Amino acid sequence: METVTLTLDEVLDLAMNVLTRHGCDKRNADAVARTIWAAERDEAHSHGLFRLPGYVASLKSGKANGRADPTVTHLAPGAIRVHGDMGFAPLALAVGRPPLAEATRQNGVAVLAVTRTHHFAALWPETAALAEMGLAAMAVTSASTFVAPAGGTKPLFGTNPMSFAWPRPDGPPVVFDQASSAMARGEIQLAGRDGHAVPEGVGINADGNPTTDPAEILKGAQLPFGGYKGSGIALMIELLAGPLINEVCSFEATEQDNKDGGPATGGEFVLAFDPTLFGAGEGALPHGEALFERMLAQDGVRLPGDRRYAARERTPEIGAQIPQSLHKTILALLD
Amino acid sequence: METVTLTLDEVLDLAMNVLTRHGCDKRNADAVARTIWAAERDEAHSHGLFRLPGYVASLKSGKANGRADPTVTHLAPGAIRVHGDMGFAPLALAVGRPPLAEATRQNGVAVLAVTRTHHFAALWPETAALAEMGLAAMAVTSASTFVAPAGGTKPLFGTNPMSFAWPRPDGPPVVFDQASSAMARGEIQLAGRDGHAVPEGVGINADGNPTTDPAEILKGAQLPFGGYKGSGIALMIELLAGPLINEVCSFEATEQDNKDGGPATGGEFVLAFDPTLFGAGEGALPHGEALFERMLAQDGVRLPGDRRYAARERTPEIGAQIPQSLHKTILALLD
Repeated sequence: METVTLTLDEVLDLAMNVLTRHGCDKRNADAVARTIWAAERDEAHSHGLFRLPGYVASLKSGKANGRADPTVTHLAPGAIRVHGDMGFAPLALAVGRPPLAEATRQNGVAVLAVTRTHHFAALWPETAALAEMGLAAMAVTSASTFVAPAGGTKPLFGTNPMSFAWPRPDGPPVVFDQASSAMARGEIQLAGRDGHAVPEGVGINADGNPTTDPAEILKGAQLPFGGYKGSGIALMIELLAGPLINEVCSFEATEQDNKDGGPATGGEFVLAFDPTLFGAGEGALPHGEALFERMLAQDGVRLPGDRRYAARERTPEIGAQIPQSLHKTILALLD
Repeated sequence: METVTLTLDEVLDLAMNVLTRHGCDKRNADAVARTIWAAERDEAHSHGLFRLPGYVASLKSGKANGRADPTVTHLAPGAIRVHGDMGFAPLALAVGRPPLAEATRQNGVAVLAVTRTHHFAALWPETAALAEMGLAAMAVTSASTFVAPAGGTKPLFGTNPMSFAWPRPDGPPVVFDQASSAMARGEIQLAGRDGHAVPEGVGINADGNPTTDPAEILKGAQLPFGGYKGSGIALMIELLAGPLINEVCSFEATEQDNKDGGPATGGEFVLAFDPTLFGAGEGALPHGEALFERMLAQDGVRLPGDRRYAARERTPEIGAQIPQSLHKTILALLD
């Protein structure tokens, strides 16, 4: 595959230019472009520039509001809502983060209910940002209907990622961000683009039969990770990011979507804890370190997030490698 | 396998008699016996009378306090702690439930940090009890070190169950309760007792190699469900039920345990949400029903908890079937 190398500054500029060209104001463009930049910085390509054409599609169709002005409502001492004004999620999250952190420090635990947004980014930028403030955080969101529930054969759940971040005294947080599908849809799309098969258990075809062909799975259904247990996690995420916060389930998002290729309308559920307020005081984080030390004492064990942090060390030097075809597609968006 | 049939009343009486005989006061015995009764009622045998000898071992060794008097502390508006006074978890949970529910109704979300208890029951009785009060709930706990982290070969994590319950307007809640190991240790023990192999992926032997022999796995390590994703869930649970609430991680619980065969000392983390306080008002639960309806429209899909509810329908009539060998062991505890 032929690639183009961009510096991280060029990634950010390119994303900013494309988004503002298609109707984002500077504030909205900046919030989205920074998540794309962070993904390329960490070599998390499936959430990087790969997503930019989808963002643009949602702006072009009028589904997403590039000039969104998210508003904060305090629903209860531990319940903050950000109405996203139909914009992309990153700005709503940035607007909600300070009141979420404040409520968490007062109550011990608090929820940020993000509503009426278009979510197309990874979740780890948000949980990591809260962990950088010393809080533990979990975030979940549902998405378009792609995953069959355990025992079923038809798509119903979204790929429904869950991210969790735990702060470390010295260095970036321990963070995971994992789809409750066996494989992230973005990865299946990349496999299809690159002509690779995917492992068994990733999905079924439109007739409900197992297949390793990405194209067949994209027409059929993805499967949850770990069978009924992943299906349970996916169901929990549907309820937390949907009915609990007065937002849509995946199937409703899909049915209401205009199918422009960009992200559907929906919500995100972010939960934060102040580790100093549950009895351990300042001892909570050192105690976490003792666990991480035991994990790393085993050959072959990595801490969640470490692969991204290793990439983060090298990309300022080597830049981001983008498929040439994707680069062309994006440049055409500036014509 | 020869079995003995007991009525559910007989299950409760037997558990009460054994526990009081070995040093529990009525209040502590009642709390534990009711979780055993509820497990047998729902044919969740691995948390039923099967656990009674372990409870007794912890009482005999003096590790567990059969006369525990759990105390409640309000750490923050959304953070309630119950110090379990080294007793079994069910009483601490019962003591903490009303203040947790009250804090949840005031704040939208609240945490119950259960500390200094011995946890040997399933988690669903607690999340279901909260859901019966109209709250959504999640509970996690770590346990003795049995599970290797993804990529590793040695036990480090507990089997670390997670339960989630969502209330329904008419009928019992949707509830899952699943180990973050590929198989619950109780199920592996039952397979070993009954001479069955377990599926591949459940565990590795003491040399770190795959095996389907329950005895080899019990000497080696269990594996997380769904590879690194289940491992991420297990890690999150270690942090929430350990360092966050000033309790031990699994490896610490194991190292500190007296190996009497009963449950180690540790904590439990219970999180509750008031679904009416996040913007949906009274609409949250009907919205959940719309999702469940879509799930059940697919052949082969069940709602989590439905298998237990089906058992709950029949056991008042047919009673609980207990292996004769287990029944003899339990009766010997009354000698």
